[in-house]
Amino acid sequence: MKQVKIGIIGLGARGVVLLPSIALISGVEIAAVCDAYPERVERYLELCKKHGYTPAIATGDYKKVLEQDLDAVIVSTTWTTHVQIAVDAMRAGKHVGLEVGGATCEQDCWRLVETSQETGKFCMMLENCCYGDSELTVFNMVQQGLFGEIVHATGGYEHDLREQIVTGGERKHGRMVNFLHRNGELYPTHQLGPIAKLMGINRGNRIVSVISAASKARGLHDWARRNRPGTDLAEADWKEGDVVTTILICANGETIVLTHGCSLPRPYSRDGRVQGTLGMWMEDKDAIYLEENVPQDGSNPDGEHEWTPMAEYKKQYRHPLWKEYEAKGIEKRGHNDMDYLVLCAFIESVREGNPPIDVYDTAVWMAVTYLSEQSIAMGGAPVPMPDFTCGAWINREAERPSKYALSSVYGELFGDTEEKNENY
Amino acid sequence: MKQVKIGIIGLGARGVVLLPSIALISGVEIAAVCDAYPERVERYLELCKKHGYTPAIATGDYKKVLEQDLDAVIVSTTWTTHVQIAVDAMRAGKHVGLEVGGATCEQDCWRLVETSQETGKFCMMLENCCYGDSELTVFNMVQQGLFGEIVHATGGYEHDLREQIVTGGERKHGRMVNFLHRNGELYPTHQLGPIAKLMGINRGNRIVSVISAASKARGLHDWARRNRPGTDLAEADWKEGDVVTTILICANGETIVLTHGCSLPRPYSRDGRVQGTLGMWMEDKDAIYLEENVPQDGSNPDGEHEWTPMAEYKKQYRHPLWKEYEAKGIEKRGHNDMDYLVLCAFIESVREGNPPIDVYDTAVWMAVTYLSEQSIAMGGAPVPMPDFTCGAWINREAERPSKYALSSVYGELFGDTEEKNENY
Repeated sequence: MKQVKIGIIGLGARGVVLLPSIALISGVEIAAVCDAYPERVERYLELCKKHGYTPAIATGDYKKVLEQDLDAVIVSTTWTTHVQIAVDAMRAGKHVGLEVGGATCEQDCWRLVETSQETGKFCMMLENCCYGDSELTVFNMVQQGLFGEIVHATGGYEHDLREQIVTGGERKHGRMVNFLHRNGELYPTHQLGPIAKLMGINRGNRIVSVISAASKARGLHDWARRNRPGTDLAEADWKEGDVVTTILICANGETIVLTHGCSLPRPYSRDGRVQGTLGMWMEDKDAIYLEENVPQDGSNPDGEHEWTPMAEYKKQYRHPLWKEYEAKGIEKRGHNDMDYLVLCAFIESVREGNPPIDVYDTAVWMAVTYLSEQSIAMGGAPVPMPDFTCGAWINREAERPSKYALSSVYGELFGDTEEKNENY
Repeated sequence: MKQVKIGIIGLGARGVVLLPSIALISGVEIAAVCDAYPERVERYLELCKKHGYTPAIATGDYKKVLEQDLDAVIVSTTWTTHVQIAVDAMRAGKHVGLEVGGATCEQDCWRLVETSQETGKFCMMLENCCYGDSELTVFNMVQQGLFGEIVHATGGYEHDLREQIVTGGERKHGRMVNFLHRNGELYPTHQLGPIAKLMGINRGNRIVSVISAASKARGLHDWARRNRPGTDLAEADWKEGDVVTTILICANGETIVLTHGCSLPRPYSRDGRVQGTLGMWMEDKDAIYLEENVPQDGSNPDGEHEWTPMAEYKKQYRHPLWKEYEAKGIEKRGHNDMDYLVLCAFIESVREGNPPIDVYDTAVWMAVTYLSEQSIAMGGAPVPMPDFTCGAWINREAERPSKYALSSVYGELFGDTEEKNENY
C-alpha cells in the first residue's frame, strides 16, 4: 500500500482532535505541521511523538509546508483563512482536506473549484457528519428505498458554546470574531453534508436557492453579563442571531431546513430529519417511522403514531462501514468515530483519486454561509445558489465505486437515471 | 350566572367533536344548529338530544340562525367559508367563535377586524393549542422568567392525513380541495396560537414579515396511486407541498418557524419548541432544559446535555387551569381537553367581553396562510404582515384579568412595559 505523506496546517483544538484518528489509519506519514502560534507547534510535536510520527518540518509559515514533497494537506486553521491556503496547496500539487469554515463570498468558492479543475488536485470538506452512525444507517435505508422518494430534510448545528465563543478559549477566538461581526448560517457543513449526499446534490440534483432568517442576538450578551460582569465582554455587541434558520430549495423540489444555534442554553443536537413518501427518521427521537410497519389489519388503529427506536433498525440496516468499524473494536479507543471514517475516506482518495466529497460539494456547502448572510441582510429574500458545476450536475457520473463512496447508488436513488449513468 | 345562547354553524366532524366539550360547560344553551347537508343536521339533533339540548332551529341556511336571539355562534364550516359567515354574524349582533381556516386574502382579515370594531362583537379563533397542557405549562414557566428572554420558537401541524385528504372522508373534501389547489401554510393557527401569546403578538410585539417555502408534492399522489389505483384520485395533481416551512419575523426580533405537513407518513407532532436565554422546551423530547439546573460545581461536566422530562416540571409549574381541570376528574370523560378549555374561555368571554384571543389575533394567525401562499409563489420572497391593529399593538393593554386570560402578565413578559400598561 502506498505510503501517504501529509501535512497538517492549523494545530488548534481541531488539529489536536484529528491526530488520534489519523494515527489509526495505516500507511500515513505526518511529514509537516504548521501553526501561527509556536506553543501549539511545540505541543503538537509532542503529540506526534506519542503517536510515532516525526514531522520533517514544523513551522509557522504554511508556504514552507507547501514546498515539501507531500501528497496532501489538512487545513484546520481559523474559519476565514482556509480558502487561500487550500488554493495555494492545490497549486503546489497537494490534495486538500478542509476543516470547517463557511465561505465569506462567492468568489472564494469559485477559486476552490477552478483551482481544483486546473491542478487536478481535489479539495474535500472533512467537517461534516456524512459518516455518522445514524446518518449512514439512514443513508443505507434510503438507498434501499425504505423511505420512498425523499422530499424534505432538516439538519442543524445546535450546540451551547457560549463560554467558548465569549471567552475565545482554546480556539483563540475563531468563533468569537465571527459571532461578533457576522450574521448567518456559520456552520452549514456539519449536517448539510449527509443531507446533500442523500439528495444527490451535484449529481442529478442541486441547491437552487437559499432563504435565511436570524433571531435577535441575546444569548451571548446575557451570558457575558452574568458570567463576566464588569469586563468589555459584558458589553460586546454580538451580531450573530441566536437561532438562524435557513431554507434550501433543490432543483428536484426537495426542501432542506438548517438550524444554527450556538448561543443559547440547550443540549446538543444535529436536528436530523429525513422525510420521504414511505417513512421518516428523526434524530431527536432517535427513531424511525416506516409506513410499512403499521399493521394494516386494524389491530393497531393508533399504530401510525408509533416511532420505532433507531436501535431496532440498526440491527438490520447499519452501514457496512460501521459494522466493520465496530468489529475492529477501535470504537473503544475513544476518538471521534466520524472523524476516523472521513479521514479514512480522505486517505483512500489521496491514494486512488475521486473523493466521495469533492470540490463541488465543498463549494456548495461552504457557499451556504455567505448566501445566508446575504439573505438575512435583505430581510430573508431568496438568493440564488451558483451552479459551481456549470451544468455538469445534470449528468455527473456517480462516484468511483469505493468502500467510502457516498453516492454510488445514485442510479437507484434518483429513478430514471439509467441514461445518466451509462458511463458508470 | 347568565345563560349563554349559542348557535353552531357547520356540523361536520369538527362540530361533532365540540359537542361533548360544550356539554360540560354549565349555563350554555345550544339554540340553533345549521349545516348545508341535511343528514348532518339530523345526526346533530340526535347528538344534541343525548346531551340534553333541544335547538329551537335546525336549518341549512346560516342566515336563519343569525336571525335568532343568540349571544354567539360557533363557525365550524369548511375552511374558506368562515369569514363571510363570521362577518354576517357580527353584523347580526353575535359574538363569533371560529374554527380553523387560514385566510385566502388580506381583505378577508380586514373585514373581520373592521366588522368587529364597528359592531363591538368579538371574533375569537377557537382552533389553536393555547390551552394544551404542555403549552400552558411552558407559558406558565415563561411568565415566571424561567426561560429568560424568549428569542425563538417553532410549531407545526404535522399529521399524516393522507387517506382523509385523498378520499375526502367525513370532512366532505374540506381538506381535499385546499390541497388540490393551494400551496402554503394551510393550518397555522394550531401552534402559532400559543407561540403568539407567549411572544405578546398584538400586545407589545407583532409579526412583521412572513417567508415560506414548500417541498414538492409527492405524498398524496404516491398514496393514492398505491391505495386507489385506477381511479381519478390516483392521477390527481396535488398542489400543496408535502412539507411547508414558514418563518415569521417579529418586531421584537424573535423568529418563529412553522412546519405544515399532512401528506407524508409520520407520527403526529406539533413540533413545539421555545428557546430563551435561560432555557428551552422541546415537545418532541417531551422535555425541558434549564441552564440553572446544570450543576456548576464541575460534578457533572456533561450536564449541559441532559434534558429533564416535562413530567418533572409539571409537578411544580402545571398551569392552575390544568390543575383544576384534572382535579375535576373530567379528563376521564374522553373529550378533547384543549377544546374544553378554549370553549370555557369563549363562553366566559361571551358573558364578560374582552376575549383572550381577539379579532386581531384571529386576523394575524389566519393571515399567515395567504402570506405563505404569496411567499411560496414568489420563490420564498419575504412578504409583509399587515398591522391589523393600525399601530395600537405598541401600547395595547393587557387582557382583562381572567381565569382564562392568556397575556395578563404582559408587563412581566416584556420588560420595560410599565409605562405601556399604565392604563391597566
